[in-house]
Amino acid sequence: MSPARLRVSVVGAAGYGGGELLRLLLDHPGADVRQATSRRFAGEPVSLVHPNLRSFRPLPFCRPEDVAPCDALFLSLPNGESMGEMDRWMKTGAVVIDLGADFRLRRPEDWRTWYASDHARPEFLERFVYGLPEIAREKVRTADYIAGPGCEAAASILGLYPLVKHGIVRSGAVVVDAKIGSSAAGAAPAEATHHPERAGVVRTYKPTGHRHTVEIVRAMETAGGSPSLHVTATAIGMVRGILATIHVFPDAGSVSEKDVWKAYRATYADEPFVRIIKQGRGLYRLPEPKILQGTNYCDIGFELEDGGRRLVVLSALDNLVKGAAGNAVQCFNLRAGFPETTGLEFPGLHPVGS
Amino acid sequence: MSPARLRVSVVGAAGYGGGELLRLLLDHPGADVRQATSRRFAGEPVSLVHPNLRSFRPLPFCRPEDVAPCDALFLSLPNGESMGEMDRWMKTGAVVIDLGADFRLRRPEDWRTWYASDHARPEFLERFVYGLPEIAREKVRTADYIAGPGCEAAASILGLYPLVKHGIVRSGAVVVDAKIGSSAAGAAPAEATHHPERAGVVRTYKPTGHRHTVEIVRAMETAGGSPSLHVTATAIGMVRGILATIHVFPDAGSVSEKDVWKAYRATYADEPFVRIIKQGRGLYRLPEPKILQGTNYCDIGFELEDGGRRLVVLSALDNLVKGAAGNAVQCFNLRAGFPETTGLEFPGLHPVGS
Amino acid sequence: MSPARLRVSVVGAAGYGGGELLRLLLDHPGADVRQATSRRFAGEPVSLVHPNLRSFRPLPFCRPEDVAPCDALFLSLPNGESMGEMDRWMKTGAVVIDLGADFRLRRPEDWRTWYASDHARPEFLERFVYGLPEIAREKVRTADYIAGPGCEAAASILGLYPLVKHGIVRSGAVVVDAKIGSSAAGAAPAEATHHPERAGVVRTYKPTGHRHTVEIVRAMETAGGSPSLHVTATAIGMVRGILATIHVFPDAGSVSEKDVWKAYRATYADEPFVRIIKQGRGLYRLPEPKILQGTNYCDIGFELEDGGRRLVVLSALDNLVKGAAGNAVQCFNLRAGFPETTGLEFPGLHPVGS
Amino acid sequence: MSPARLRVSVVGAAGYGGGELLRLLLDHPGADVRQATSRRFAGEPVSLVHPNLRSFRPLPFCRPEDVAPCDALFLSLPNGESMGEMDRWMKTGAVVIDLGADFRLRRPEDWRTWYASDHARPEFLERFVYGLPEIAREKVRTADYIAGPGCEAAASILGLYPLVKHGIVRSGAVVVDAKIGSSAAGAAPAEATHHPERAGVVRTYKPTGHRHTVEIVRAMETAGGSPSLHVTATAIGMVRGILATIHVFPDAGSVSEKDVWKAYRATYADEPFVRIIKQGRGLYRLPEPKILQGTNYCDIGFELEDGGRRLVVLSALDNLVKGAAGNAVQCFNLRAGFPETTGLEFPGLHPVGS
Repeated sequence: MSPARLRVSVVGAAGYGGGELLRLLLDHPGADVRQATSRRFAGEPVSLVHPNLRSFRPLPFCRPEDVAPCDALFLSLPNGESMGEMDRWMKTGAVVIDLGADFRLRRPEDWRTWYASDHARPEFLERFVYGLPEIAREKVRTADYIAGPGCEAAASILGLYPLVKHGIVRSGAVVVDAKIGSSAAGAAPAEATHHPERAGVVRTYKPTGHRHTVEIVRAMETAGGSPSLHVTATAIGMVRGILATIHVFPDAGSVSEKDVWKAYRATYADEPFVRIIKQGRGLYRLPEPKILQGTNYCDIGFELEDGGRRLVVLSALDNLVKGAAGNAVQCFNLRAGFPETTGLEFPGLHPVGS
Repeated sequence: MSPARLRVSVVGAAGYGGGELLRLLLDHPGADVRQATSRRFAGEPVSLVHPNLRSFRPLPFCRPEDVAPCDALFLSLPNGESMGEMDRWMKTGAVVIDLGADFRLRRPEDWRTWYASDHARPEFLERFVYGLPEIAREKVRTADYIAGPGCEAAASILGLYPLVKHGIVRSGAVVVDAKIGSSAAGAAPAEATHHPERAGVVRTYKPTGHRHTVEIVRAMETAGGSPSLHVTATAIGMVRGILATIHVFPDAGSVSEKDVWKAYRATYADEPFVRIIKQGRGLYRLPEPKILQGTNYCDIGFELEDGGRRLVVLSALDNLVKGAAGNAVQCFNLRAGFPETTGLEFPGLHPVGS
Repeated sequence: MSPARLRVSVVGAAGYGGGELLRLLLDHPGADVRQATSRRFAGEPVSLVHPNLRSFRPLPFCRPEDVAPCDALFLSLPNGESMGEMDRWMKTGAVVIDLGADFRLRRPEDWRTWYASDHARPEFLERFVYGLPEIAREKVRTADYIAGPGCEAAASILGLYPLVKHGIVRSGAVVVDAKIGSSAAGAAPAEATHHPERAGVVRTYKPTGHRHTVEIVRAMETAGGSPSLHVTATAIGMVRGILATIHVFPDAGSVSEKDVWKAYRATYADEPFVRIIKQGRGLYRLPEPKILQGTNYCDIGFELEDGGRRLVVLSALDNLVKGAAGNAVQCFNLRAGFPETTGLEFPGLHPVGS
Repeated sequence: MSPARLRVSVVGAAGYGGGELLRLLLDHPGADVRQATSRRFAGEPVSLVHPNLRSFRPLPFCRPEDVAPCDALFLSLPNGESMGEMDRWMKTGAVVIDLGADFRLRRPEDWRTWYASDHARPEFLERFVYGLPEIAREKVRTADYIAGPGCEAAASILGLYPLVKHGIVRSGAVVVDAKIGSSAAGAAPAEATHHPERAGVVRTYKPTGHRHTVEIVRAMETAGGSPSLHVTATAIGMVRGILATIHVFPDAGSVSEKDVWKAYRATYADEPFVRIIKQGRGLYRLPEPKILQGTNYCDIGFELEDGGRRLVVLSALDNLVKGAAGNAVQCFNLRAGFPETTGLEFPGLHPVGS
């Protein structure tokens, strides 16, 4: 790909990740959105499902079968649905960016363990790059096949990576207590997301065994460590957003504030989308997801317990943007040679609900 | 029925109206809950679906076919589902109290007009009493067949009835602008109630043509008038509750505050569940539904526009209690000879979300 | 002003309207934001109060006294606070755009009637243009002094103006039943906005006598009519947004769908920020405020009651954008000769809470 | 005290804890509510502040100075405000039940460490019993001075106590990640609880250093252990409720499900207000606070990570009931010889927001 108006298409565009891709790409100066697929809504305008897209030129959904070759193909399908047809997608898109889980893991046995099925295309796993620019920017620049991280994994990895890389926690215990909005469950109605049941909920739906755990574990290995990772996920009554509260027990028994600062600054000083939030005062002195809705930021902050025995890291993002579509566009920018922030400049709102 | 422990059963107990009936009846000193039906959950404990019922003795759902004769049978089924089997229910329950729409209207043609189908048992319509005690208490006391009002109709009728009866509005225009919580849509998941789509919504889903209109019209006729009724329904982001904002244009061109007070006092002075809320100060100086969650109250207040040209009435209730199950238990109490408030004493919470 | 980087400053920048102005202007290619005032937070960065502004260059609050001459001065102060110092603001800004109520009315007696005080600078009232581009675009293009409409007035006027202009309702009754989010109450904590009291509320805080009524009345006069206007305002549990449900009784007794369409199309066909939303299907077939958060759109839709006796108009917008800061920037664009949509392109989010 | 109608009064009755005490006591067959104090609202009816109390007989607030001797005096004051006048309260109430923090700790140095001030009446500390019936029932039965636990402490202690007592964790690490509703911040408006800022928030306001930590530590000591306790508190967008997600690392390296069950059953089998929730299926298979609003239950559930290396305990309650007023009434019942559940029978609602 070379910087110009590139032809892009979105497969699975009626879902929430797909809709967010359309919002970002239809506004992107370097993207020419050609097609958006939905088997169910083929022929209907994309704005029937995503009413915010009314402000763009009309675009109808087409069937997945009808996707034409393009420069970059984005896939936003339920877990397990992209792998079976990946041969075809690889022929359709010069670059393929998959937001789903199918190609996030390098080892087929990881898939089997965490997704309880055999992988349909294990031979392709090595060809995909784990598309989190902050830990794999150079690989993303040249990758033809990119797998975006899980939303909860993205928040956790961005919070933990510098700590592992800088030796603060390589073998100690880490508890990730994640609070997650309802859009992470996708666009299909179900009992768990029926409004009267879901509104105002504080529901720890995954006390243990969250599938994103393995993504975090593998990412930590690339940072040089294997902390003892414990992930718990709680659904709360917002639509968009994740806050990962990460409780870290440092390897050395304790850690100083200066060392933590150093680790984060060394890793993220030049990152356009990771901000260290640690104000001394004000309501928003630590990261919060609600003001990040619609933005591609991951805000990170921390606090030490007396003597540094425990380090509490807060990592917040919008699960549909930095946790999915925005991060994918960031990868697209890198791969295509656009400035990394192109099309991702929305600063977020204040005040705002969630 | 005579005051003692009466055998009661609930058909359609897995829905929200049915669950609320169980909450009230399991705590009712005069009711012995025998059976609760759900085709889908037959054999499972009622607390699987309604977790608040864990605090009562275990009770399993049974199949509708297995309901045994009882003193009072409550039906809480989707519209159109009770009429077909009403012959059977009339043999099962000495008294039948139907929370659904099927027997609310006296005239078969009303059903046809508003529900777009022929009524399956038009011959039974005359045998049912419209079970709103505040306007039909004496009939309810002796009725064997009682049809509870629609939730939106209950709020509107209670707000309007005294005004029509006392001649304030008998032919003038009345606009009912109702704000309604998500539980009114029932327990079945659907796109309109999928949390990410429904949360925070202000959705005027019925600008015109709301089916409860005909109930209100017929009730006003019993009060001696036929105002020009215009109903609009807007879904908002709460779970329980209705606020009907009723804009009244008095027949005489204007009305005095004293006359409005007189109409309400004359009608509701001795009502246990209708309260006139019109404080001069405080946050809660007019009716609001959120503090009524779980209670059987209908709170009514009003304000006059300069000169009394327009009268704004506010009528608030919990759609599942005074708008459904609580009102049905109130009818049950009347019919059985219990004190009218038995089992309906919960005062509501403050503060509380919704 | 001529199209270039114009020097702009915001007085009252710590409030919600002021913060939204900063969000829009800091991203505006033709605006060079020089100063943002807050007496309370002088010296602090604007991002302390508005955390979404972290993504822009640092900007400190300064004291109102220290505002330097600029090309366009935006005022976002509590009602009654801009009038006393307007002499000074007129010397400071070549163009003054006031978001507050002080200069919205042409007649001093209107101010006295609705705001219960004497106007401090009645002689300036005539010099201000009522800055709603859809009804006064040409005046705005050349105005040096612009008063932005109230948020509730903006929604109502945009819904009603075409109907009055095209003779559908010039003397008939109009009921505006507005549902309003909490940000409209401003940034100062108070009992009515304390979260436990305000969350989940449906509170008709202004059944009659809403101050924006007079703005609507005056705007309708410019459209050639004087319908009998009745405004009722209800606070609901969202942060941003207004839905005005407007019940219209046509002068002729009834109106046809075709005539309503014609009125709206004739008025708004070329408007960049007014959209007629009237889809036959889909969840979002009529206007809703939640998907408009952060956007400058006013979405308008309607439905007729049988025979056209009543017309229900729905008008939705974000009170802080099209109802305040976004509309002000739209006026700024017109006055400065920028394309009208500059800096106002955000399409909104889906799904999203509110 | 002996079972009969006892004279009770509430000091600090305009706050949320005080209001909840009134709701429960006005409905309590053994309590005769004599006085309710509020300096600010003296002379006004309690229902002005707590509109749910309209359903009870009128009761005016009086000044604290005017409280007459009674059988049981409930104090619900901001932290630090009861201690200075405790001499007087001890003379006023035969039994004093304090919901505030002032007398929860036995050691004056604990107060100094966690509340950063000297205790005004250290000599009284020993005379107060820590009023959590599940761990101190017999002491409560005979205590004249009872200090109710903090809401977050109550949830944590009830979740942890059996595990410490039964040796599952006596020295290992325990992370308490608590999610808390806005009513826990009290009735006084502030910026942090201003609706536009607080709605939809996920705000980790106390990553470390939560004051309830010391209560939990001391309670664990009475159970025979001193786990390494780490408490983190996150405000979320609900009004009532706490979910404490408790991550436990067993002393033995791992623990079996059977042993955990045994510990909980042995401790809570006969408890009327603690329920072990661990269903295999259904939406509500683990504890959730929203269905507990208004109830006195603490629901506890758990899940083990593979091999039992980590144990995740979920403890849910209503911060104003089991976390404050309901628990106080439970203590009152014990002390007075009433059945322990008297006046605390409300089962909660489903469905419901929060």
